Amino acid sequence: SVDKGVDYANYFCTYSFLYHQKEMLSDRVRMDAYYNSISQNKHHFIGKTVLDVGTGSGILAIWSAQAGARKVYAVEATKMSEHARLLVKANGLEDIVEVIEGSMEDVTLPEKVDVIISEWMGYFLLRESMFDSVICARDRWLKPTGVMYPSHARIWLAPIKSHLIDQKRDHYDGTMEEWHGFIDDTRNSYGVDMSILTEPFTDEQKKYYLQTSLWNNLRPEQVIGTASIIKEMDCLTATVEDILVIKTQFFSSILEEDTKFSGFGGWFDVHFRGRSESPATTEIELSTAPSIENGTHWGQQVFLLNSPIRCSKGDNMNVSFVMNRAKDNHRLLEAEFGCEFKLASGQPLQPFRKKFFIE
Amino acid sequence: SVDKGVDYANYFCTYSFLYHQKEMLSDRVRMDAYYNSISQNKHHFIGKTVLDVGTGSGILAIWSAQAGARKVYAVEATKMSEHARLLVKANGLEDIVEVIEGSMEDVTLPEKVDVIISEWMGYFLLRESMFDSVICARDRWLKPTGVMYPSHARIWLAPIKSHLIDQKRDHYDGTMEEWHGFIDDTRNSYGVDMSILTEPFTDEQKKYYLQTSLWNNLRPEQVIGTASIIKEMDCLTATVEDILVIKTQFFSSILEEDTKFSGFGGWFDVHFRGRSESPATTEIELSTAPSIENGTHWGQQVFLLNSPIRCSKGDNMNVSFVMNRAKDNHRLLEAEFGCEFKLASGQPLQPFRKKFFIE
Ligand SMILES: Nc1ncnc2c1ncn2[C@@H]1O[C@H](CSCC[C@H](N)C(=O)O)[C@@H](O)[C@H]1O
Ligand SMILES: Nc1ncnc2c1ncn2[C@@H]1O[C@H](CSCC[C@H](N)C(=O)O)[C@@H](O)[C@H]1O
Repeated sequence: SVDKGVDYANYFCTYSFLYHQKEMLSDRVRMDAYYNSISQNKHHFIGKTVLDVGTGSGILAIWSAQAGARKVYAVEATKMSEHARLLVKANGLEDIVEVIEGSMEDVTLPEKVDVIISEWMGYFLLRESMFDSVICARDRWLKPTGVMYPSHARIWLAPIKSHLIDQKRDHYDGTMEEWHGFIDDTRNSYGVDMSILTEPFTDEQKKYYLQTSLWNNLRPEQVIGTASIIKEMDCLTATVEDILVIKTQFFSSILEEDTKFSGFGGWFDVHFRGRSESPATTEIELSTAPSIENGTHWGQQVFLLNSPIRCSKGDNMNVSFVMNRAKDNHRLLEAEFGCEFKLASGQPLQPFRKKFFIE
Repeated sequence: SVDKGVDYANYFCTYSFLYHQKEMLSDRVRMDAYYNSISQNKHHFIGKTVLDVGTGSGILAIWSAQAGARKVYAVEATKMSEHARLLVKANGLEDIVEVIEGSMEDVTLPEKVDVIISEWMGYFLLRESMFDSVICARDRWLKPTGVMYPSHARIWLAPIKSHLIDQKRDHYDGTMEEWHGFIDDTRNSYGVDMSILTEPFTDEQKKYYLQTSLWNNLRPEQVIGTASIIKEMDCLTATVEDILVIKTQFFSSILEEDTKFSGFGGWFDVHFRGRSESPATTEIELSTAPSIENGTHWGQQVFLLNSPIRCSKGDNMNVSFVMNRAKDNHRLLEAEFGCEFKLASGQPLQPFRKKFFIE
């Protein structure tokens, strides 16, 4: 179980700044997707009750009210709730939108709702583990006929080329070189031999520079092989159990001649489809795939090998993938890739495994 | 009272990285001061018992043992204690130095000690409020005849000139300009009027860019007036009460012709003097004053006015100063300056007050 104060210090605190909310509110791809999914599917909202899980500035609650909702419960854990309340009032919606400050897990609503809307997606979809709170809300407060916004989510992985690791490796090498100078200085000037700490220091720096996945805005041409869906979720039925561990296997073929396999790029998409008994009129997609015109603040999550592998069209790989939550922080993730790479000729390369921290 | 988990997340966690300990261990001015204070005052250590409060990598405990201590208790709250233990062993001192993992406040020692050594100083001396833990250790574990390392501490303030505020103001202006564009976009594209949030957003950004004191390495010539000691502490007798609130008044004359008063620079020094019954043979000073050759990782704390005041030699000011701990984090500080500025001619300028967050 999680200490609330610690969770606040590590996670919620950033959301209490308008500056951070503004970053999300300025992400046009994100905004368009939610705005269109609501305004082009008014039948889900007109006269209905809505719950916005983690309302932040209140934007999704306000759009829901503008689309004709009878009542919107807008729950927010941080003091951002006060700003949301101001914004609701300034837009003349205080009779419809009720802002409630509190953790979703602790809040009691006066009624069940027809729609749960939430923007709960973290980097690589699952970082932040906020979907747990949406599941909790759904199981307690969604009517049996209710609709989830978004309704579906998927995680993708694909082999990529990237130069980022060169930079990281340079920084790592520089840090280690400096360390060795430091060891000498400390011995010579202060009579203490610190070389026993070289191993743990190396581990610490390797983790930081080489084993932590990176946020990056990939260009589409950096994807050099087929992309695979490694997880699909129906937001209406998914359980915490389903997302606690993502364990899968996928296959990818290199699609480009004479290139470099530098690692994997990961992203997600979500869809707003309503539910089969009450489908969306217009299905909206929010994709965070590599894109030139339609990048998002989520970018992609990049998992880089220590040294790239030269490869070419027709080469292929079998990849095992496991992703867990970090032991000491349930909102962070750890992923392990196992990769069997085969040249088009059929010749296998040395298989490898690599573990990454998603921090 | 403080939640330990939250205090760990906000404060201690950085100290659990070797990278951060190395930054302190690479600060030559800091290292030389402690090393010399120990090695040039061996009479305080030979055959004595020592307590190192917050041993980190273990460096001060090791030096104390090398100087001839009979027994050193080295207390460290974070997992850095494991590295300290390794380092002690690698330097053949495991029979003398006992590394104890735990908060100083919770630890029980088998005996009282002759010396308490600690490097507890934060930015502007008191940020981090770690001296509280040293006081607690002293009151429980120091023999009546015991010695404190360091033995004395002082905080200084002086008027300075600086261009930093121009940059900060530019960033602030840029952020606000962007905000106004964002307000327009959100109204036009998404039908929501966010202008009610302009006031709280302005407050948030002002606090961040203009009301937060800055870390800076001042050049000595940036100090344009007389420096004042605003606090003196005898580490043997100071109480938490004494450092909870620093409230004082000081006077400063401008020493430079035709210059700009941009705000105040703050720094500290500590001395290693032993105690009157058992003085140091060689008194060592550790100063973090502006310096070209002897800068420290503490730099100086800089408190900048929104716009500088033109001034000249002979102008002078009367300054009231109050510093408190932040309400929601006892390790952070808030300071308020009230300033009555008088030209050499005797003509007073408009007095002003400004509040700063030390984060
Ligand atoms: N369990 C929980 N209970 C209440 N609020 C939560 C929560 N988990 C996360 N949040 C809040 O959910 C928000 C996610 S960010 C999305 C904000 C807003 N819905 C928008 O789309 O712009 C943050 O403000 C965060 O503080
Ligand atoms: N109350 C407390 N109990 C134990 N350790 C503490 C403490 N407050 C701070 N510390 C530790 O004190 C250290 C201060 S930094 C100084 C480290 C070392 N003495 C050196 O001079 O290099 C940090 O490692 C921090 O984790």
